[in-house]
Amino acid sequence: MDIATRVYNHKWQIDPIVRSLIDTDFYKLLMCQSVFRNSPDTRVEFSLINRSKKVRLADLIDEGELREQLDHIRSLSLSRGESTWLRGNTFYGKRQMFRPDFMEWFENLRLPPYHLEKIDGQYELTFEGSWPEVMLWEIPALAVLMELRGRAVLNRMGRFELQVLYARAMTKLWEKVEHLRRVPNLKIADFGTRRRHSFLWQDWCVQAMQEGLGDRFIGTSNCLIAMRREVEAIGTNAHELPMVYAALAENDAALAKAPYQVLADWHEEHDGNLRIILPDTYGTEGFLKRAPDWLAGWTGIRIDSGDPAAGAETAIQWWKDRGEDPTQKLVIFSDGLDVAQIESLAAQFAGRVRVSFGWGTLLTNDFRGLAEDDALAPFSLVCKAVSANGRPTVKLSDNPEKAMGPSAEIERYKRVFGVGEQERMEVVV
Amino acid sequence: MDIATRVYNHKWQIDPIVRSLIDTDFYKLLMCQSVFRNSPDTRVEFSLINRSKKVRLADLIDEGELREQLDHIRSLSLSRGESTWLRGNTFYGKRQMFRPDFMEWFENLRLPPYHLEKIDGQYELTFEGSWPEVMLWEIPALAVLMELRGRAVLNRMGRFELQVLYARAMTKLWEKVEHLRRVPNLKIADFGTRRRHSFLWQDWCVQAMQEGLGDRFIGTSNCLIAMRREVEAIGTNAHELPMVYAALAENDAALAKAPYQVLADWHEEHDGNLRIILPDTYGTEGFLKRAPDWLAGWTGIRIDSGDPAAGAETAIQWWKDRGEDPTQKLVIFSDGLDVAQIESLAAQFAGRVRVSFGWGTLLTNDFRGLAEDDALAPFSLVCKAVSANGRPTVKLSDNPEKAMGPSAEIERYKRVFGVGEQERMEVVV
Repeated sequence: MDIATRVYNHKWQIDPIVRSLIDTDFYKLLMCQSVFRNSPDTRVEFSLINRSKKVRLADLIDEGELREQLDHIRSLSLSRGESTWLRGNTFYGKRQMFRPDFMEWFENLRLPPYHLEKIDGQYELTFEGSWPEVMLWEIPALAVLMELRGRAVLNRMGRFELQVLYARAMTKLWEKVEHLRRVPNLKIADFGTRRRHSFLWQDWCVQAMQEGLGDRFIGTSNCLIAMRREVEAIGTNAHELPMVYAALAENDAALAKAPYQVLADWHEEHDGNLRIILPDTYGTEGFLKRAPDWLAGWTGIRIDSGDPAAGAETAIQWWKDRGEDPTQKLVIFSDGLDVAQIESLAAQFAGRVRVSFGWGTLLTNDFRGLAEDDALAPFSLVCKAVSANGRPTVKLSDNPEKAMGPSAEIERYKRVFGVGEQERMEVVV
Repeated sequence: MDIATRVYNHKWQIDPIVRSLIDTDFYKLLMCQSVFRNSPDTRVEFSLINRSKKVRLADLIDEGELREQLDHIRSLSLSRGESTWLRGNTFYGKRQMFRPDFMEWFENLRLPPYHLEKIDGQYELTFEGSWPEVMLWEIPALAVLMELRGRAVLNRMGRFELQVLYARAMTKLWEKVEHLRRVPNLKIADFGTRRRHSFLWQDWCVQAMQEGLGDRFIGTSNCLIAMRREVEAIGTNAHELPMVYAALAENDAALAKAPYQVLADWHEEHDGNLRIILPDTYGTEGFLKRAPDWLAGWTGIRIDSGDPAAGAETAIQWWKDRGEDPTQKLVIFSDGLDVAQIESLAAQFAGRVRVSFGWGTLLTNDFRGLAEDDALAPFSLVCKAVSANGRPTVKLSDNPEKAMGPSAEIERYKRVFGVGEQERMEVVV
């Protein structure tokens, strides 16, 4: 595959960015099955949120092209081969992870309509409908916007500039892989679908990790790539579960219990390496302090905001307090990682806890410094549940820069979950 | 064209390195036509000379593969399209540069046999026969050895290592092109066929120069690439003409005249930009001092050894002494150039003389620093006329490191041409 030539050829034809319903993160499908079972009738609204205001997406991306790409996604349905793979493959050591009733529903699914408007140089892009349907928009919507913004820049470049651009990006990634080779006992996965430079580029990154890291590369969150490249599909659960459960809580007492209810439902469905706690939605410290004992028996914790080393220390201390042996536990780092941080975290926690890394945007979209005005640098774009059954959702996380929701609700959540002062950390990607 | 993939695929099939008799330097064909007219019956021997003894070619390159490649070259004949191009194209502004009798001979040509032996870690590769036939072995023989040595290294690399290798090489070349863009009034040609990394890579380099430099890139010495990419074929004459003429001289007086006889014959055949003096075969200073006045009327001088700035100053002074206006004259630099030297020479001679550059090995084979142990760095390989009608040839040049021939003959030539002390300069490529 010659990426530069493919990209060059994009200039003369419509080339869909997302070509499959499973060109999405594995945890979306796992969560979707949970939601399909537990809350199929919950109505949600998801919305695009560009945290990097200076990137004026509506000035960069043609609305017609964006609609074309989104419409194309609405035309997709699960192919026979994809369905066979989901039904027959072993995920996390388990056969038939996806139940027949869910698969039947998924095989007949088309994604629901979207609502698109230009407002002040940005796109307002929202999706409304039943939770299991709407939630599947998140990853493809992000991938489409990120790639269309990239294409707008690439379209101005000549054929050789493109070749050299990709040459530089490949060189850069391979140097990262060569650094990672020297990290003892590394376990690392690709988590870079949502903010990837492009599908082809993510696919190349996965191959580079396969070739460069061997079995230290444990898989990809991208189902389509996992299927095609025959690597493990990786992922468990995300903030949208506690956010929607919390929004639906009838009062403060129910709200305080909501994050645990999410994991109680998960506990019923999954075991082993799928039992990973994501503790930061409403503050890690309070969450762990008030957690029921059965949660301490789970396999691991994913650290997705705040200072990652501090988060891991908190987790280790919590396991010790609950009589668990941290060396048998797993910490998954997944927040804006790059090589230097991976190296230092691996060194800091070696022998103290099992560690793995979910490497996202700076794996699949580190085009920083490669185009004029850094026009291809990744930025902080998310697509989140903003309401459930008409009630607003709230996320706090361990970094106030990542908080979202109406401010009165944020204050209420902080009170209910006992969140005090938090350290502000810049969000790059 | 994805070079890395093509190279990777080489591993499973025989892939000829030289696929055409015009995959050679344009000046070879011009000189061949001259020789075909003036000395068709002269018997010559050409021999491979590896000036980089530490590169043990016979240890690196399989003899069977080398024979396969050389045999393949002996199977080549001029194709109809190639012949049409040579007959019909305009070269240096002139139609029918190649005369019908020469073309008819060329169309029926197959290259003569070669003699190959392994001696002390090196290949002794020689070609004997009539001058116009044997001389056409020089460029393909060099290209085959250089590329087989490269393939021996590439064969040990994985697919991604290869992709990254070419990514780095592309990045490196493009950075050079970007530097050259900023040189005012640049005129530069590709002279890199003989020691290129590979045909595909030279072809990429030419395209990069076309795209990056526009009409500042004036053409390539490679006829096949000139034909396919529709750029000018560039080149005039080389040391083999005076070397063979000198070897055939019956006595010292005839020897002293031989270099001028070469140019007298050339003067009869060519005019304009093809009248370029190559003065260094037996020392530039003495050559110019004793040159007949009609030579001062020629268009330019090519500087191919010694300190290039000093050589150009000597030429400028010579033109002034002969009453010529240097600003109307052309200096062509062609000895082991790279970007920094091109920049400084262009700056030093701007406005004083017309300048152009023949950029060779460090354009088409700058893989220095890109493989372990620098195993892909270019080295100093040549293929020269070593005898003519049984008499040894001699080359002195303006750098004693480039001198060749039996030492008694070297001393005789130095005496006849009045060459004194010369500055030694390291020969990199």
